[in-house]
Amino acid sequence: MEQPNRFAEVVTTTDMEGQQNNEEERDRESNYSLHQTLSSTQLAIVGAKVSHIESLDYEINENDIFKHDWGKRSRAQALQYVFIKWTLAFLVGLLTGGVATLISLSIENISGYKFRAVVNYIDDKRYLTGFAFFAGANFLLTLGAAFLTVYFAPTAAGPGVSEIKAYLNGVDTPNMFGAATLFVKIIGSIGAVSAGLDLGKEEPLIHIGTCIASLLGQGGSDRYKLSWHWLRYFNNDRDKRDLITYGSSSGVCAAFRAPVAGVLFALEEVATWWRSALIWRTFFSTAVVAVVLRAFIDFCKSGSCGLFGRGGLIMFDVSGVIVRYHVMDIIPVVIIGVIGGLLGSLFNHVLHKVLRLYNLINEKGKLHKLLLALSVSLFTSICMYGLPFLAKCKACDSSLSESCPGNGGTGNFKQFNCPNGYYNDLATLLLTTKEDAIRNIFSLNTATEFQVTSLLIFFVLYCILGAITFGIAVPSGLFIPIILMGSGYGRLLGIAMRPYTKIDQGLYAVLGAASLMAGSMRMTVSVCVIFLELTNNLLLLPITMLVLLIAKSVGDCFNPSIYEIILELKGLPFLKAHPEPWMRNITVGELADVKPPVVTLQGIEKVRRIVEVLNYTTHNGFPVVDGVIPELHGLVLRTHLLLVLKKKWFLNEKRRTEDWEVEEKFTWIDLAERWDKIEDIAVTKDEMEMYVDLHPLINTTPHTVVESMSVAKAMVAFRQVGLRHMIIVPKYQAAGVLPVVGILTRQDLRACNISNVFPNLATSKSSKKGY
Amino acid sequence: MEQPNRFAEVVTTTDMEGQQNNEEERDRESNYSLHQTLSSTQLAIVGAKVSHIESLDYEINENDIFKHDWGKRSRAQALQYVFIKWTLAFLVGLLTGGVATLISLSIENISGYKFRAVVNYIDDKRYLTGFAFFAGANFLLTLGAAFLTVYFAPTAAGPGVSEIKAYLNGVDTPNMFGAATLFVKIIGSIGAVSAGLDLGKEEPLIHIGTCIASLLGQGGSDRYKLSWHWLRYFNNDRDKRDLITYGSSSGVCAAFRAPVAGVLFALEEVATWWRSALIWRTFFSTAVVAVVLRAFIDFCKSGSCGLFGRGGLIMFDVSGVIVRYHVMDIIPVVIIGVIGGLLGSLFNHVLHKVLRLYNLINEKGKLHKLLLALSVSLFTSICMYGLPFLAKCKACDSSLSESCPGNGGTGNFKQFNCPNGYYNDLATLLLTTKEDAIRNIFSLNTATEFQVTSLLIFFVLYCILGAITFGIAVPSGLFIPIILMGSGYGRLLGIAMRPYTKIDQGLYAVLGAASLMAGSMRMTVSVCVIFLELTNNLLLLPITMLVLLIAKSVGDCFNPSIYEIILELKGLPFLKAHPEPWMRNITVGELADVKPPVVTLQGIEKVRRIVEVLNYTTHNGFPVVDGVIPELHGLVLRTHLLLVLKKKWFLNEKRRTEDWEVEEKFTWIDLAERWDKIEDIAVTKDEMEMYVDLHPLINTTPHTVVESMSVAKAMVAFRQVGLRHMIIVPKYQAAGVLPVVGILTRQDLRACNISNVFPNLATSKSSKKGY
Repeated sequence: MEQPNRFAEVVTTTDMEGQQNNEEERDRESNYSLHQTLSSTQLAIVGAKVSHIESLDYEINENDIFKHDWGKRSRAQALQYVFIKWTLAFLVGLLTGGVATLISLSIENISGYKFRAVVNYIDDKRYLTGFAFFAGANFLLTLGAAFLTVYFAPTAAGPGVSEIKAYLNGVDTPNMFGAATLFVKIIGSIGAVSAGLDLGKEEPLIHIGTCIASLLGQGGSDRYKLSWHWLRYFNNDRDKRDLITYGSSSGVCAAFRAPVAGVLFALEEVATWWRSALIWRTFFSTAVVAVVLRAFIDFCKSGSCGLFGRGGLIMFDVSGVIVRYHVMDIIPVVIIGVIGGLLGSLFNHVLHKVLRLYNLINEKGKLHKLLLALSVSLFTSICMYGLPFLAKCKACDSSLSESCPGNGGTGNFKQFNCPNGYYNDLATLLLTTKEDAIRNIFSLNTATEFQVTSLLIFFVLYCILGAITFGIAVPSGLFIPIILMGSGYGRLLGIAMRPYTKIDQGLYAVLGAASLMAGSMRMTVSVCVIFLELTNNLLLLPITMLVLLIAKSVGDCFNPSIYEIILELKGLPFLKAHPEPWMRNITVGELADVKPPVVTLQGIEKVRRIVEVLNYTTHNGFPVVDGVIPELHGLVLRTHLLLVLKKKWFLNEKRRTEDWEVEEKFTWIDLAERWDKIEDIAVTKDEMEMYVDLHPLINTTPHTVVESMSVAKAMVAFRQVGLRHMIIVPKYQAAGVLPVVGILTRQDLRACNISNVFPNLATSKSSKKGY
Repeated sequence: MEQPNRFAEVVTTTDMEGQQNNEEERDRESNYSLHQTLSSTQLAIVGAKVSHIESLDYEINENDIFKHDWGKRSRAQALQYVFIKWTLAFLVGLLTGGVATLISLSIENISGYKFRAVVNYIDDKRYLTGFAFFAGANFLLTLGAAFLTVYFAPTAAGPGVSEIKAYLNGVDTPNMFGAATLFVKIIGSIGAVSAGLDLGKEEPLIHIGTCIASLLGQGGSDRYKLSWHWLRYFNNDRDKRDLITYGSSSGVCAAFRAPVAGVLFALEEVATWWRSALIWRTFFSTAVVAVVLRAFIDFCKSGSCGLFGRGGLIMFDVSGVIVRYHVMDIIPVVIIGVIGGLLGSLFNHVLHKVLRLYNLINEKGKLHKLLLALSVSLFTSICMYGLPFLAKCKACDSSLSESCPGNGGTGNFKQFNCPNGYYNDLATLLLTTKEDAIRNIFSLNTATEFQVTSLLIFFVLYCILGAITFGIAVPSGLFIPIILMGSGYGRLLGIAMRPYTKIDQGLYAVLGAASLMAGSMRMTVSVCVIFLELTNNLLLLPITMLVLLIAKSVGDCFNPSIYEIILELKGLPFLKAHPEPWMRNITVGELADVKPPVVTLQGIEKVRRIVEVLNYTTHNGFPVVDGVIPELHGLVLRTHLLLVLKKKWFLNEKRRTEDWEVEEKFTWIDLAERWDKIEDIAVTKDEMEMYVDLHPLINTTPHTVVESMSVAKAMVAFRQVGLRHMIIVPKYQAAGVLPVVGILTRQDLRACNISNVFPNLATSKSSKKGY
C-alpha cells in the first residue's frame, strides 16, 4: 500500500496554491521536468521546419454552456445543420472536381505546347536548341513551383497524405489546410508536373480536397479575413474531421476518376474513425466529383480544351478486352507479387535514407531547398531528352491500327530522331507526359513495341528519379512514380515470361504497377478498386487481388508503408490501431507515477492560480476537484481558461455565477475558437486577487480509466473514442485523497514514449506478437 | 449529498454475505425485481420461439491465467495464429463459393426440368395437366423446405441478416450458426427457390457464409461431436466476430459475384466494429469466392452442368453498351428515386404488419407454420401459371437478334399459349426462374417487348407476393423480390417517360430496382457497388448514385430500414451507432440508482456465497472488491465461477493460491468455454463452507466510467470498445464506501429501456435531433 503517499503529495501540490510566490512555482516546475520523460516531445517537422503540434479533441465538451445551447436548439436548427452538412459535402465534391479539372487542363496544355515545340526542333534536327528549350522550360516551371512552395507555403511540399492521416488520427499539423497552402499546392502542382519531374498530381489532389473541405468548414480563411460566420457552426474538431474525410476521398476520386476507390481509400488508408453515415456522405462527395469530371470530359470532346487529351485523366480502359487466364498463369502472377513486395520495401528503405539526407540539406536554408529542386529538374531534363538517343530506331509494324510513327501530343510510337517509317521506343516512354507514358507502357496487343534495353533504361531511370524527386520542395505525389517503375519491371517480366503464358504484356505492366503500389504503400482494397475502376474490367480482379495480397505480405516482412515511414520521420504522434503486446504488462497507474503530479483546479478558482498554472504548465486540460469530500467535477480546457482571462470574466467574491451571467458572456461559438498563448493576455495585480467560477466551462463528463487499467486497453479506448485527455481515477476509496491520479494524453500512450521510460518492458517482450 | 446513503446500503449488501439464509436472499431478490425495470428483458424471438439471449464479450479478459498463458506464447505460436487466421479466411471463401455453386446448380437444374415439363404440356395444349404438374412440384418443394425448417432448424427461416447484424453488434442469438442451421439453410434454400416462391437465395447465402465461418472458428460442430481441438484457439468472441465478418461478405460476393460489394456490404450494413486489417482479410475471402465462381462458370461452359444457364448467377452485363444521358435526364432519375423511397418505406410498413400477423399464426404451432407456407406456395403457383393467360399474344419483331418465340429453359420471348411467331410477354416474366425474369425485364433495346398491362400485372403481383412470402418458414431473401418489384415499376415509368428522355427502358428497370433497394433496405454504397459490379459499367455510376441517395433520404423520412424493423420485431438488443439526444441529460449514476444494488464478491470468497449469488442473480459479471481500504480488484465472469464450482477448485482455508495450483487446474481454453447453468452443478454441504481464491480469474482491467458520465458518452464508448460490462465508479473519495457504484450492460444503455424508466426525459427531447 504505497499509493496514499503519492496522493498526499498531490493534495499538497493542490492545496498550496495561493500561498506560493512565483519563484517557488518555477522551482516546482523545474522539479517536474526531472520526471518529465513522458509526453515531453510535442514537436514535429511541419513543412521543413520543426514546429509545435497540437492534438485534436473529438470529445463533446459537455459543459453547462454546451448543454444550454444545445437544449435550445430547435428542430429547424437541427435540420439546418444536416442540410448544411450535405451542402458542404456537395461543395467539397464540386470544388475538388473543378480544381482537378483546372489542374489537368493546365498541365496538359503546358506540357503539350512544350513537347510540340521540342518535336519541331527535333524534326529540324536542331537537337541542341531543342534540349535548351526543353531544359529551360522545365527549369523555369520547377523554379516557379519551388519558389512558391519554399517562400509562401512550405507545408505544400510533398504529398501531404501523412499529415492528413495524422489529422484524422487526432494530430493537428499547423498551417496544413490553409488558403495559402491550397493556392500553392494548386499552382505548384501544375508547375511541377508540367516541368516533367517524376511526380504526380494525385496525392496533391488529395491534399487539395482536404484544404477545400477545411476552408469550407471553418467558413473561409482566417488569415485573409475571408470568412462567413454562419459556417462557424462547423468550426469544431468533430465536424472538421468529417469534412476532411470527404475532402480526401474526393481528392482520390478526382485523381483517378474512381469514386468507389475514393471511399475505400479514405476507409483503408486515411481514416482512423469511421461510421456508416460517414461512408454515405463521403460517397456523395465522390459521386459529385465523378459527375463534374464527366461533364468536363464531355465538354472537351468538342475540342475546346486546347491540347487536353485523354491522357489527362489516366484511364486504361480494357473493358472490351476478353481476359483469359488459366491455372498455370498463377506462377507468373505470384512472381510479380513477390518481386513487387521486395522492390517496394527496398524503395521505401532507399526513400527513407534520401529523405533524411534531404532534411539535412533543407535545414541549411531556403536557397538550398530551391537549388536542390532545380538540380533535380536539370538532371531529369538531361535524362529525358538524352537517353532516347541511346535507343535503336525500330521499324513500324503496319499491321497495327495506331498511326506510326506519330509525333503528336499524345499517342504511341514517337518518331523522335528516327527516319520516317521508324519510331524510337524510348522516346515514346520518356519524352511525353507521365500519364501518356503510362498509357503507352500499359498498351495491349503491342508485344513487340518495346525493346528490352529500352525498358531496362526506363525502369532504372525511374527508380533513380523516383528516389531523388520525391523529397524536393514542390507538391509531389508517389502514385505516378511507383506506377511508372512498376509498369517497367512488369513489362520486362512479361517479355521474360512470354514463352510460358498467354497474359498480354500490357496486363503484365498493369500487374507490375499494382504490385509495386502494394509493396510500397501497402494499400490493398483501395489500390485494387482503383485498378478495377481504371481498367473497367472485372475479370482482372482475381489476379489483381492475388498480386496485391502477395506484394503487401512480402513488403510487410521488411518495413512499414511509405506513409508510415514519413509519419515517423516527421515525428507526428500517430496512434496505431493495435497496442504493442508488452503494453498489457503495465498499468496506467504506473504511467501516472512517472509523469509530473497532476495539476488540478478548484470549481471557483483564484485568478492568480489560473495564471500561474497556465504559465508554468503546457497542459491542455486540468481536472477540477472540489468539495469537503473531494469530488471530481470534470475537466476544464486550457483554451477556455484563456478565454476567461481574455474576456476578464472575473468575480469579486468567491461565489457561483447565475445562468444569465454566463449566457451574456459566452456563446458556443466562442468556445470553439482556439486562443493561443498566455503571454498575450495581460492581467492586472488587482485582478489577480479576484475569482473565476469555472463551473459553466467544466466538461462534466470526461472519459476516465481506473489506475489498474492496462495501457493496452486504455490506448484502444482512447483511440476508438477519439480522445485528447483521459483522466485516471483511483481504484480504492479512502478519505482525504484526490479522486484523480493523473491524466493521460496521446503522447503518454505512444509505444515509443513508454518504452523510453520503461526500457525493460519493451525489450523483454518485443519479440512477441499476436492479438 | 445523497450518495453516501446509497453507498452505505450497498456495503451492507456485501457485508451481510454468509450470515443470511436462503429465504432472506430470496426476499432480497424479489425486492430487486420491483426496481428491475432496467435490463430485465433478455428475451428475443429466435426462429419463431421466444428465447433467452446473451451478449457477447469482445473485451480481452486480462486475468492471471490469460497473462500467464499469453506470456508463454512464443513467436512461432503467434505466427501460427496469423497463419491459421488466413487459412480460415481462405476456407470460408472456398466453402462459401463451393456451397453457392452447389445451390445455383441445383436450383437451375430443378427449376429447368420443371419448366421444361410444363412447356411440353402447354405445347400439347394440356393446360390443366400442366398446371397440376407445376403446382404439385412447387407444393412438394415448398413442403420439403418448410418441413426441414420447421422441425429441424427454425432459425434457418428468413434471411438471417438481422441476426448476423446483431451478432456483430454483440448479441448472441442461440442456434443461429450451427451445423443443423447450415444444412437446413442450404437444402431449404434450394427447395424454396426451386419452388418458384417469391424469394431469393442471396440473404440465405450470407447466412450460410456466416454459418460456415462460425463452424470453422469453433473447430466443427459441438452438437455432433465433429470438432478439431486445435481450432479451439479461435473459440472466443473476438476471433469469431472476425470470422463472421468474413462469412457475411463471402456470402454477398457469392450471391452477386461482386467481391468489392461484399466487403462494402459488411462495412456498411453488417459490421459494428471495423479495422483496417479486417477489411484486408475480408477482401481476401471474397476474392477466393470470386475465383471459385469463375472456375465453376468456366467449367459449366462446356455444358457439363445440366440445365445450368447464365441466369444462375445474375449478371446483367451492359459493359458493351454506351450509356448516354444529358442534364435533362436528371428529372426522370429524380422521379424514380422519390418513388423508390416512397414505395420502399410503404413496403417496409406493410411487411412489418404482415410479419406481426404471421407471428400470431406461427405461435399456434408447427403445423400452422407448415400450412401457411404451403398456402403461399399454392397461391404463387396459381398466379404464376394463371395470369399469363390474361396477356395478349404479341407478334415477334424479326429485327431483333434473339430467337423469338423461344421456349427453352432461359431466354426472352416465351411462346407459352401463343401461336408460332407470337410470344406471351407476361409468361416471359412469370413462368421462368426469378433470375431469368430479372434478366428479361432488364434487357436493353427491347422497348416494345412488354405491354403496359403485363408490366402492371407483374408489378402488382410481385408487390403482393413480396409481402406475403417473406415471413413464411423457409429460408428466404428480400433482394430478389425487391429487385423484381423495383424493375417492374422502373420499366413502367420508362414507358411513361418515353417521349421525354432517351434512357433505355432496361436501364429504367435497373434504376427502379436500385431505388427500391435503397428505399427499403437503406443501403447505399453497397447497393451501388453491387449494381456497378452486376452491370460492369462505370458510366452508369453517377445516375445510380443519385437514385440511391434520393430514395434512401425519402425512405428515412418515414421508417427505419427493413433489417432494423426485423431487429426490433425480434427484440434483439441492438446498440445503435448514435445515442439519442436526450441521453446527454442523464448520467450513468442515475441509471445505477434505478438498478438493483450491485452484487460484489471478495477476492477469496466462500463457496456458499458464490452459489447463492449465482442462484439468485442472472448477472454475468461480478465486481470483486476487497481490502481494508476497499479496492476494486476487477470483474469475475459468471462462466468462470461456474467453472470453478464444476471443477471443485475449493480451498479449506482462506488463503491465496500459488501459480502452479492454477496452472494445474485451468488452461486458457477452459476459460473460453461457456458453462450454462448453475442448476446442473451439485455442491455438497461441506463444500459450501470452503473457500475459493478468485484472484487468478479476475479480469483486473475492466472498463469503467465515473458515475457523473453522461449515458450518451458511456454508450458510445461501450459500443466502440465492444464491451459486455462497464463498471461505474464513484466520482468522489470517502472512507468506507464501495469503490463500485454499479455495473452497466447492453440492456441498460438501450434508449427504449431507459425511456421506459425515465419517460419524461425522452418525451421532452424526442423532437430534437442532430449531432
